[in-house]
Amino acid sequence: MTANIPDIVIGRLPVYLRALTRLAQEGQEVTSSHELGQRLGISSAQIRKDLSHFGGFGKQGTGYQIHYLIEQLQQVLKVNQEWEVVLVGAGDLGSALAHYRGFTERGFRIACVFDNSPTKIGKQVGGFAVMSLDNMQEIIRERAIKIAMIAVPAEKAQEVADRLIEAGVRAILNYAPMNLNVPTDVHVQYIDPVVQLQRMTYYLS
Amino acid sequence: MTANIPDIVIGRLPVYLRALTRLAQEGQEVTSSHELGQRLGISSAQIRKDLSHFGGFGKQGTGYQIHYLIEQLQQVLKVNQEWEVVLVGAGDLGSALAHYRGFTERGFRIACVFDNSPTKIGKQVGGFAVMSLDNMQEIIRERAIKIAMIAVPAEKAQEVADRLIEAGVRAILNYAPMNLNVPTDVHVQYIDPVVQLQRMTYYLS
Repeated sequence: MTANIPDIVIGRLPVYLRALTRLAQEGQEVTSSHELGQRLGISSAQIRKDLSHFGGFGKQGTGYQIHYLIEQLQQVLKVNQEWEVVLVGAGDLGSALAHYRGFTERGFRIACVFDNSPTKIGKQVGGFAVMSLDNMQEIIRERAIKIAMIAVPAEKAQEVADRLIEAGVRAILNYAPMNLNVPTDVHVQYIDPVVQLQRMTYYLS
Repeated sequence: MTANIPDIVIGRLPVYLRALTRLAQEGQEVTSSHELGQRLGISSAQIRKDLSHFGGFGKQGTGYQIHYLIEQLQQVLKVNQEWEVVLVGAGDLGSALAHYRGFTERGFRIACVFDNSPTKIGKQVGGFAVMSLDNMQEIIRERAIKIAMIAVPAEKAQEVADRLIEAGVRAILNYAPMNLNVPTDVHVQYIDPVVQLQRMTYYLS
């Protein structure tokens, strides 16, 4: 039922899930593609089409049951379970990520934080004792961890990615400002604030 | 010459610029759409097509002059100048952004950091004295600042955005995990690590 959903649709589902969760927190029980569209700046037709890939979520006129739709989206995205994530890099950004409280309630838990700096190893960062990169592959293998966040300098990122992938990681969120070369069965998403700023300045006068 | 470039193309240009800058740092002077494509995981045909929107950047067989192409892309994206950016929120994430050294060399400079917490106002964060939100609009107007980064909790983000926009901001990089309602002449980009993690778990087994 959820086979062959276009990647661009998959990319929008977490945004729908986030908006629906917020509506639920606000105490709402039912919503419409129109209301969701207004909140998200997406057309209601687009939303109906995206959700129709999973079938039977709502009918025009009666709206969507928010809690049911949240459960369905969590199931499709496989975040109805908790995924362990390793974080590599305990600098300013890594530290901010280690402190971030928003992962757990949305399906992710940082399992370990790694760094290769002797000044950082053993220190506490956001409740984690920073561990040496030398132990990383063993821990990833033992715990069968599939997801990593890379928050190391650009010149170290490819080497870190190679070691993560060798140990079994299949999804990487890369904060280092560079593109990674990875095998086709590994998924990478990028977060680079400058890339996102630069795509807006084009429109400024 | 640069009119009517599709937004999806604009979105890829900063990634090309980043890769080219890296090639230049590595001492290379000429590249090809093939080499760029390999580095970026994008087809060389796509790269040639994207760059053809600006005309005359390279010829098949002779390749692209890296420094020339960097200059052209910087000009198209308007990052051949330095943009002042205000940062709102001086928590863990805001602090990491205030410390980040990668903005300046790519066209952006944090001008001020704002927060509304009495425990933060006046404190130094990454070389900035945190200022009160009460002064924000005046400073944005005085300095004609067009760009802001929002790193406040989700429940405060819309109010902050409204005040930024009222003062003249036209581009917002929003780290708060929620969608913003903004007028059509305001551009917003979102950074939410969980959204990007959730779009990868779909593919994991």
